[in-house]
Amino acid sequence: MTDGTLSEVPCTVLGAGGFIGSHLCQALVAAGANVRGFGRRPVFPDSMPRINFTYGEFNDRTALARAVDGAEVVFHLLGGTTPEVSNNDPAADVQSSTLASIHLFELCRSSGVRKLVFASSGGTVYGIPSVVPITEDARTDPISAYGINKLSVEKFAQLYDHLGGAKAVSLRIANPFGPFQSPSRRQGLIPAATMALLADAPFEVWGDGSVVRDYVYVTDVAEALMSAATYDGQFGIFNIGSGVGRSIVDVVSTLGELLGRKPKLRFKASRRADVPKNILDIQRASDALAWSPRTEWVDGLKQSLEWVQAFELRQR
Amino acid sequence: MTDGTLSEVPCTVLGAGGFIGSHLCQALVAAGANVRGFGRRPVFPDSMPRINFTYGEFNDRTALARAVDGAEVVFHLLGGTTPEVSNNDPAADVQSSTLASIHLFELCRSSGVRKLVFASSGGTVYGIPSVVPITEDARTDPISAYGINKLSVEKFAQLYDHLGGAKAVSLRIANPFGPFQSPSRRQGLIPAATMALLADAPFEVWGDGSVVRDYVYVTDVAEALMSAATYDGQFGIFNIGSGVGRSIVDVVSTLGELLGRKPKLRFKASRRADVPKNILDIQRASDALAWSPRTEWVDGLKQSLEWVQAFELRQR
Repeated sequence: MTDGTLSEVPCTVLGAGGFIGSHLCQALVAAGANVRGFGRRPVFPDSMPRINFTYGEFNDRTALARAVDGAEVVFHLLGGTTPEVSNNDPAADVQSSTLASIHLFELCRSSGVRKLVFASSGGTVYGIPSVVPITEDARTDPISAYGINKLSVEKFAQLYDHLGGAKAVSLRIANPFGPFQSPSRRQGLIPAATMALLADAPFEVWGDGSVVRDYVYVTDVAEALMSAATYDGQFGIFNIGSGVGRSIVDVVSTLGELLGRKPKLRFKASRRADVPKNILDIQRASDALAWSPRTEWVDGLKQSLEWVQAFELRQR
Repeated sequence: MTDGTLSEVPCTVLGAGGFIGSHLCQALVAAGANVRGFGRRPVFPDSMPRINFTYGEFNDRTALARAVDGAEVVFHLLGGTTPEVSNNDPAADVQSSTLASIHLFELCRSSGVRKLVFASSGGTVYGIPSVVPITEDARTDPISAYGINKLSVEKFAQLYDHLGGAKAVSLRIANPFGPFQSPSRRQGLIPAATMALLADAPFEVWGDGSVVRDYVYVTDVAEALMSAATYDGQFGIFNIGSGVGRSIVDVVSTLGELLGRKPKLRFKASRRADVPKNILDIQRASDALAWSPRTEWVDGLKQSLEWVQAFELRQR
């Protein structure tokens, strides 16, 4: 870690089997890190490189302790539900996100983990922004329990850092997209809309389609997480996004053009947990992490489309 | 509530038996409100006016539901431990502060409470400030679990407001002082230092005595809580303090002068949960709540001293 690379460094990825986690594992293996994974079984086994993987839930303390033991760097990609679901039972989200993370931070402290990188949520911690793009110093008024808990986890990570635990960096990640983002589970707009277009089916969106999000390609997110792992400067929080806002209608139109199909959007009532607009200012990450998104929007979309098409063929 | 007063308004004070709570109950009764109290038995029974008081712990859901039922305004003065203690077991502080408050907010929503006023902590939610006095929009980087949880409770109060629950206002209260602040329990610097001076005993302080705090007289805090209860504007957060910073050494010197005694300070290692300086900017409360502290510093100190002297006499 002293030379700024992760070669030979023992790294544990919590949530390794998930969408961002699997890409991070790929990138870490490629960088020569000594990678272990923890979490649920990968949804797409072909997304995972061969690594030492411990299956377990976040609240399985024995399995978690085993996964963290000996790691120098821990990537924390676990916890919480979705913004909308979290508002149905905020207390349950506190349990699965904040409380489970505090237990993790205790483990990291007792086992001498040097660096903790937390995947926070750039789309929810700020709430409804007064200006866009949003800087890291903007007000944080989440409109979901999910967002409040991501904020709390950031702050507890900093607290354990202050109290002598692992040095903590949190990345407020915008809307990631790319291969291995599950269409069937509606993790994100792009795979779900692609599936609907391929099936020539109507596609339901909440609200009037004007909701603006900042989409960032998943391999760029993996690079940001790795940059954070070797970062040793003053900041504990970074926005990670594209810095560009796109509406739902725009995204689905572009997908339709790429596939040569006409979208059939169906509009539903908007959701209480959805902010109307979210675009992140990524200057700090550019300056301090020397990170910028490298994947062009349409190139990323094409990669995502191709994966969904292959997935859809296998499903038949 | 429509005429901006609390006359005849059903109000419930959670934590009524505590230091701020007892003063708030006095002020509410004087304003003609219909006051009910909930919490532990008053430490000083003579501090409490005659009100309907339900004894219970914050986690006693049946008792809490009974106390909230029928209230239009709920004052939430419960939860958490102390900054230093909270860092020994952050998860326990999440339970007793954030999770217990979420349960309260659910109760408030189901019983149709119109206004929730939360007593947050101006001394801990900001952490180590980059500039003083601190405005409400400053960064919030607490260095204690206590501070993180106070922030979370503020944000969950706003979330339930957003989701159709009670309209929420949080007051970030600086260091309150005045009669009925327990000297024996070391709730605050002033009564504890007064007891030491009266006994001509050494007085231990953490650090070198340079730690600066913003001291606000408790009846002024009670007035701020009542102003917040009838406030109907855009802000959900207000700093409540004096706007003036005083070091421990300064405060104890002034107490010594008032008592005609020479302080014997003993300095100990400073605590990890203590910020070096905390002074609140109270312009927003002045502008929007038409609230300002009315009690002069030395007048407040004298009231506090007199009460401690009477308490000390009774203890003999």
